[in-house]
Amino acid sequence: MDRFMQAAIEEAKKGLEEDGIPIGSVLVKDGEIIGRGHNRRVQHDDPLAHAEIDCIRSAGRIGKYNDTTIYSTLMPCYLCAGAIVQFGIKKVIAGESDTFDGAADFMKEHGVEVIDLDIEECKTIMRDFIQEKPEIWYEDIGK
Amino acid sequence: MDRFMQAAIEEAKKGLEEDGIPIGSVLVKDGEIIGRGHNRRVQHDDPLAHAEIDCIRSAGRIGKYNDTTIYSTLMPCYLCAGAIVQFGIKKVIAGESDTFDGAADFMKEHGVEVIDLDIEECKTIMRDFIQEKPEIWYEDIGK
Repeated sequence: MDRFMQAAIEEAKKGLEEDGIPIGSVLVKDGEIIGRGHNRRVQHDDPLAHAEIDCIRSAGRIGKYNDTTIYSTLMPCYLCAGAIVQFGIKKVIAGESDTFDGAADFMKEHGVEVIDLDIEECKTIMRDFIQEKPEIWYEDIGK
Repeated sequence: MDRFMQAAIEEAKKGLEEDGIPIGSVLVKDGEIIGRGHNRRVQHDDPLAHAEIDCIRSAGRIGKYNDTTIYSTLMPCYLCAGAIVQFGIKKVIAGESDTFDGAADFMKEHGVEVIDLDIEECKTIMRDFIQEKPEIWYEDIGK
């Protein structure tokens, strides 16, 4: 598997170890990981701390994003897709969109290239989590 | 003027006093302010700390947002509009959309009621800031 998606999955697993929501993300520029993060809603009591938000934040104030690619173990929701569109990230690589279909069409409409790798491991992590803690998951997506 | 927009303007002015970007926001539920915030990109070196994000975060994990209204001194960008759509905030009251037109249509398409109060004070605060520190402003919106 792509080493960047592997790094995003490692982030998701860190979230799980912390009793958090297992979604991970990395931001890549020039073949290097410049940001990484995972969902920390539970850990930081922060409803905005989605994986992609945590990841983009960790890269700091890089200014321009048009040469970056963001990886996420799950298709980005509208919050994270909004960040991607606003900051001008041009490419999104998602681990899966089976357990949550996210905002792929919205990103595509705004010229973002969206690739879904449809990885079984990503789906299993999310399915197990949703089964175990559905209330936390539905809180995370505002349902 | 509406006391909630007045509170959002006070938040914007706090940002200005901290040498930050002067955009403020409050979240209202049942006639009470349950969250308040202002843009802290500069103060926290955090590109995600837009006013509405800072405001929603400050309200904590309230779970359901369908009975909340968010006020912002400036029309929300895609990042903040994405949060509003994902969490199901049903009403947005913006101070102005002259200095930045934001993502009003996107929110409306998703059933959010969007009101633009077109307040001169909000425009003046932003115009003065953009004139003084254009590079910070364009960084904030990813341009």
